[in-house]
Amino acid sequence: MYKYVHGGDIYTARDLTQNPNIIDFSANINPLGLPPGVKEAVLAALSECQHYPDPFCRELTQALAAYEHVPRENIYCANGASEVIFRLALALKPKKALLLTPSFADYEKALGTVGTTLEFYPLTAENDFRLEKDFLQVLDRTYDMVWICNPNNPTGQGYEASFLKEVLERCHRRNTLVLVDECFMDFVDEPEKYSVQHLLESYNNLLILKAFTKNYAMPGLRLGYVLTANRQIIDELRAAGQDWSVSIIAQKAGICALGQTEYLQKTRQLIKTERQFLLKELNKLGVRTYGSLANYIFFQTPGHRELDKQLLARGILIRSCANYRGLNSEFFRIAVKNRADNLILVAALKDIIKL
Amino acid sequence: MYKYVHGGDIYTARDLTQNPNIIDFSANINPLGLPPGVKEAVLAALSECQHYPDPFCRELTQALAAYEHVPRENIYCANGASEVIFRLALALKPKKALLLTPSFADYEKALGTVGTTLEFYPLTAENDFRLEKDFLQVLDRTYDMVWICNPNNPTGQGYEASFLKEVLERCHRRNTLVLVDECFMDFVDEPEKYSVQHLLESYNNLLILKAFTKNYAMPGLRLGYVLTANRQIIDELRAAGQDWSVSIIAQKAGICALGQTEYLQKTRQLIKTERQFLLKELNKLGVRTYGSLANYIFFQTPGHRELDKQLLARGILIRSCANYRGLNSEFFRIAVKNRADNLILVAALKDIIKL
Repeated sequence: MYKYVHGGDIYTARDLTQNPNIIDFSANINPLGLPPGVKEAVLAALSECQHYPDPFCRELTQALAAYEHVPRENIYCANGASEVIFRLALALKPKKALLLTPSFADYEKALGTVGTTLEFYPLTAENDFRLEKDFLQVLDRTYDMVWICNPNNPTGQGYEASFLKEVLERCHRRNTLVLVDECFMDFVDEPEKYSVQHLLESYNNLLILKAFTKNYAMPGLRLGYVLTANRQIIDELRAAGQDWSVSIIAQKAGICALGQTEYLQKTRQLIKTERQFLLKELNKLGVRTYGSLANYIFFQTPGHRELDKQLLARGILIRSCANYRGLNSEFFRIAVKNRADNLILVAALKDIIKL
Repeated sequence: MYKYVHGGDIYTARDLTQNPNIIDFSANINPLGLPPGVKEAVLAALSECQHYPDPFCRELTQALAAYEHVPRENIYCANGASEVIFRLALALKPKKALLLTPSFADYEKALGTVGTTLEFYPLTAENDFRLEKDFLQVLDRTYDMVWICNPNNPTGQGYEASFLKEVLERCHRRNTLVLVDECFMDFVDEPEKYSVQHLLESYNNLLILKAFTKNYAMPGLRLGYVLTANRQIIDELRAAGQDWSVSIIAQKAGICALGQTEYLQKTRQLIKTERQFLLKELNKLGVRTYGSLANYIFFQTPGHRELDKQLLARGILIRSCANYRGLNSEFFRIAVKNRADNLILVAALKDIIKL
């Protein structure tokens, strides 16, 4: 029987607990909710929905090109970043790929659909889940593709752009494609230190994955995209699935969201403040935290392996990281939410951990 | 460079003509527009969109189970019927498949992504694009999969359920899966004569494809599904892509639409009346029509191979069928729309064809 392995399944949590008001810390979504104007944009878009969506998302890619400062021909939009991941696997059918573990489970699921041979580079608690210099030598084993999540999900650890440039350079010489998943980069305090976006034009083996899901709080609408100077790959992505995967609703919501710069500034400030608050409270409880550069906190509590179940009984859903490769039931991930929700979580944690 | 091959691209038509008011006869969409209540359902759903969609579409499959009279475990929902087509190809990776030509282009595109060897059974103008008895012998060549569109797109020709039962029986003995695409079945006057839905429980090699796109006029929202008693395949479909492909908007719109039985009755009556009107007018013009069981009319005009361009200059978009396998620029497809639009089309046709 097929098993769902991600966070964010409030539906099962509601069924299990018979509690319709679960607070969801298991999905890392902007606590500000939908940006202003999106509701009105969706309403207006409804009158267009008796047409098929624009298969080339022309208006949306135009807006994204201005926002990301890349040519519109270097952008491919999809039904969430997850669709890009599966299309990439199908379009490129890499024979051999390198994944870092733990990381987002869909990389492995997607490459599994096309029978890619996978090798894993382990990120470990001993090294604070950092990427070490020996990673560069590993790349010499010659892969068709390397997938890197930056900041990494679930660890929240970031890899600096200066180091990733060395990765790209070495991979370029070996014809290895590098996917860098920057879906959480908007939440990082110093994105310029970590993002490789300025390297797009220099490396045609680079693909950067982004989404509207987390920063614009619209996982339910489904919108993601990939940036690359390698236009051949964009053509191959189009061929690897249907033409109408991005709904008219998602296209119009995306265009509207891109105009909300004040909303993004507010988001960054809120996440920065609340992340510090949560880290301080967790550390007071003697919980070991790691990385946590983005809008979620990754932590280890050897003495509380049932923490997720104990919190769920209190109406709070967090992400157990037991099903990630290389982790176990000592590890958890929580989203950074607004102060009211964070206080509820902290009170529950104090109650459970101090028992 | 990637090329879009379907109807419904009003965006290119608008760009080409600088006319924002193109009348679209190239996509076969219910002329009544979105069902009543869907707008309100979408608005209400927006407040849920900061969550991920339910990966199992529990509420929607429950509603569909009641509507289709099948167990909910026999339903898999996707981001439009087209997503089902691509997931089926990836999940099943058929080595050898049989397609009927001309038919919907995405079957071939999807099977192309997994390197399936394709054989084609030609439907021809000489035979009125009917499926002949010799088709049964062809099945003995042993395929992993056979794809049948009923009524067929673009011909509008239908294949009777009694004949398809023979197809299913023969395929069952040879372990051949049969996909029957019934996306246009709701527009047929006597669906009980053509639909194979009553055979689902008897044949676990049968998959039936359906969509909300055409009958509920919501191509822009993206919602389709597949019915099968073969639950192993449903599990494989889940594994062949992301978990969140059906947006919350689409799920809620679908649930609302399923309750609108009066809307569907009105639709059937309207299509029946307007199809007769258009057929009569086309025949008066000496145009040869075929099949046309659904909400579109397929016709041949050897003397007017530029008809689509001539109509576009008048603000009317129709589907040239020149890019279908087995057809050429003598063939066109038009949607059955409401009387006002149909009158505009007929006037333009009279003007062009009588010249």
